Amino acid sequence: SIDAERLWTTLVDSARFGGTERGGLHRLALDEADAEVRAWLESAAAVAGWPVQRDRIGNQFVVKPGRRADAEAVLIGSHLDSQPLGGRYDGVYGVLAGLEVLRALAEREIEHERPIILANWTNEEGARFSPSMMGSAVFSGSLALDEALARADAGGATVAEALAGVGGVAAPTAERPSVAGIHAAVELHIEQGPELEATGTDIGFVSGVQAIRWIDARVSGESGHAGTTPLGARRDALVAASRIVAEVAGLGETVDPDIRPTVGELVVTPNSRNVIPAHARLGLDLRHPSAGILDRAERTIRQAAARIAADSGTSVEIEVILDQPAVVFDSGVLEAVRSATRSLGLSGADLISRAGHDAMQLAARVPTAMIFIPCAGGISHSEAERITPEWAANGARVLFETVAELSGA
Amino acid sequence: SIDAERLWTTLVDSARFGGTERGGLHRLALDEADAEVRAWLESAAAVAGWPVQRDRIGNQFVVKPGRRADAEAVLIGSHLDSQPLGGRYDGVYGVLAGLEVLRALAEREIEHERPIILANWTNEEGARFSPSMMGSAVFSGSLALDEALARADAGGATVAEALAGVGGVAAPTAERPSVAGIHAAVELHIEQGPELEATGTDIGFVSGVQAIRWIDARVSGESGHAGTTPLGARRDALVAASRIVAEVAGLGETVDPDIRPTVGELVVTPNSRNVIPAHARLGLDLRHPSAGILDRAERTIRQAAARIAADSGTSVEIEVILDQPAVVFDSGVLEAVRSATRSLGLSGADLISRAGHDAMQLAARVPTAMIFIPCAGGISHSEAERITPEWAANGARVLFETVAELSGA
Ligand SMILES: NC(=O)NCCC(=O)O
Ligand SMILES: NC(=O)NCCC(=O)O
Repeated sequence: SIDAERLWTTLVDSARFGGTERGGLHRLALDEADAEVRAWLESAAAVAGWPVQRDRIGNQFVVKPGRRADAEAVLIGSHLDSQPLGGRYDGVYGVLAGLEVLRALAEREIEHERPIILANWTNEEGARFSPSMMGSAVFSGSLALDEALARADAGGATVAEALAGVGGVAAPTAERPSVAGIHAAVELHIEQGPELEATGTDIGFVSGVQAIRWIDARVSGESGHAGTTPLGARRDALVAASRIVAEVAGLGETVDPDIRPTVGELVVTPNSRNVIPAHARLGLDLRHPSAGILDRAERTIRQAAARIAADSGTSVEIEVILDQPAVVFDSGVLEAVRSATRSLGLSGADLISRAGHDAMQLAARVPTAMIFIPCAGGISHSEAERITPEWAANGARVLFETVAELSGA
Repeated sequence: SIDAERLWTTLVDSARFGGTERGGLHRLALDEADAEVRAWLESAAAVAGWPVQRDRIGNQFVVKPGRRADAEAVLIGSHLDSQPLGGRYDGVYGVLAGLEVLRALAEREIEHERPIILANWTNEEGARFSPSMMGSAVFSGSLALDEALARADAGGATVAEALAGVGGVAAPTAERPSVAGIHAAVELHIEQGPELEATGTDIGFVSGVQAIRWIDARVSGESGHAGTTPLGARRDALVAASRIVAEVAGLGETVDPDIRPTVGELVVTPNSRNVIPAHARLGLDLRHPSAGILDRAERTIRQAAARIAADSGTSVEIEVILDQPAVVFDSGVLEAVRSATRSLGLSGADLISRAGHDAMQLAARVPTAMIFIPCAGGISHSEAERITPEWAANGARVLFETVAELSGA
């Protein structure tokens, strides 16, 4: 069906936009490399004669028309942005395998009833602008466009400003893609976990996504001279913040062994060696399949923060900035993935996604599911993220068959 | 002797260069505000007819000639740079009180045998460029000029580049000030500790400065996805770094209650909420009057770091980047300060300095001492740093009498 070599070459080739020396990718949402890869995607679509549409949050939609212009479309794709010093496949693979599916359908002149839309969702990673899954959340209505456009990066630039900076390939062409509606959505992605590789399974049938809670903790103490201020007179925001980090890291023991608790961000102010830290801001990421466990984790952190603040003479503010419930995917779409996998003679297994994905947002509005392929050691959000050409080809084949089935080819 | 009102007005007035809304000062070495205050100092010298000289590290020297051109000079002054969101008096007070002393001597046409040099030392704070006391360390030969010029700030700009950026008022005029040598040096400064205010003492006779050790700790773990990576598979650099912070904060209990241990800097990489931190760099500042205690503290940290690294699957590198032994000031110069204080009917007390100072560097080369005035609550390196006009005037009076005595007025 698909051309495995062309898919791999495209993966390697497009990594020139933001690729790092150590085989990773550094392509933050709407930065220069992202602008370049967006332009590259549009020229690939132009060569094939497919129109590209863009909405107001910069989501790109490559539309391959179907036989019936009035039919609801099949939506595939993922995201082309990465984490800082991230991997080359997280998101990127789903977009480029989708492109390969469109190319293979066109090349073999396979007709399909429904339009097929390949999406590149804006700012899925949430690394430059919070929250993650921004483009797909706006698309599916769970995040207001104005609110998203006003979000700023660490340097104070807003999403609206960054979109303007990207120029033509992020400028809106329409409110929404010009199709009658969305019939079903499928996102192909690397697992970002160890299960498929460990069990030698080709394909993951993703039945849902665990819940995500993002919490900000802001510690305020008092700055002072590192050399003069007696220990008893200190209100050191970093000492307090460190105790919060330890508390978060301990949630596996205090709350539930299956929780994923991370402090990924810590910013200290004024961050000068001979000054006692006055402020510290911590960015927490908590995940678990059950929202109830996340509630308990949040309570544990709030209680610890109050205790630590009292002990250390600091104040600690806790704020939930993202509360994304767990998602269950559509059984009909999943069944199409299962039968595609079976028809290709590939092995498959049910699993849930531990990572968030654009499909998690889409699921609120349209029948949606995901397909996973293995990734080496389960490592992602790292320059060490790797897949094999064979894994890549398997996933693209399953996507091809699934899309053919869903689009009425 | 001095004009207390003019001194206070000058302190208030010059705070327009980098003054913050909350009454602090944000004037990092060789930034725009520093360039402005340097120009302002030179124009104040020009009005009075005093030449200004500058050496290759940007130290400024206002020279008030004495009766004997061949006599060794008396050196006063301090620094005009501040911490980020620092105070208005730390350093600044010593320079401006020195300017007031020169003005008062000129106004009253008091002749003196020796030249008097008022110095503004470059980058005393060490906040933008490491190490602190840079200008005075180069001047006194304990830091090589080339090495200092090559030091870079967090944005990668070197001292040499920053000096070039400041332009004329940082451009060298001579290798060293054109005097026969230095007879004695006196630095007037705020205490930055609570003792003088708490005991209602006007003046501190500073007999020495405690030892300072700066240590960098670099933790390396592995990045990974916050949502997917199981707890047992993590090598989280921030979790390890937080344990180091706790260990440092505990040195008062594990090593000596009189130690001042601080982690003032912590930088996390990649610092993205949904990525397990791969690296953390900690900037430690340890102080104590005894170098032996600092040795024990350093050993304790090295042992803890090894234990934490082993526990957490990370690696930790420990590097001493500044090892400044304690300094004992010159008893002759101190005696001049004592007798000036007595002659003015002010109260005085012996103490040591807990903060580092340019005088600490000068002491290695010339007979040196310091004069302290109280500061409110002992708070400094903070926008909350405060002194009263009366404290300011007292110190300037003592400096005036001390300089008169040392310069043969
Ligand atoms: N797939 C993926 O890594 N998405 C980033 C959003 C998340 O943090 O899960
Ligand atoms: N006086 C003063 O605060 N100097 C900064 C150098 C230090 O002691 O850290």
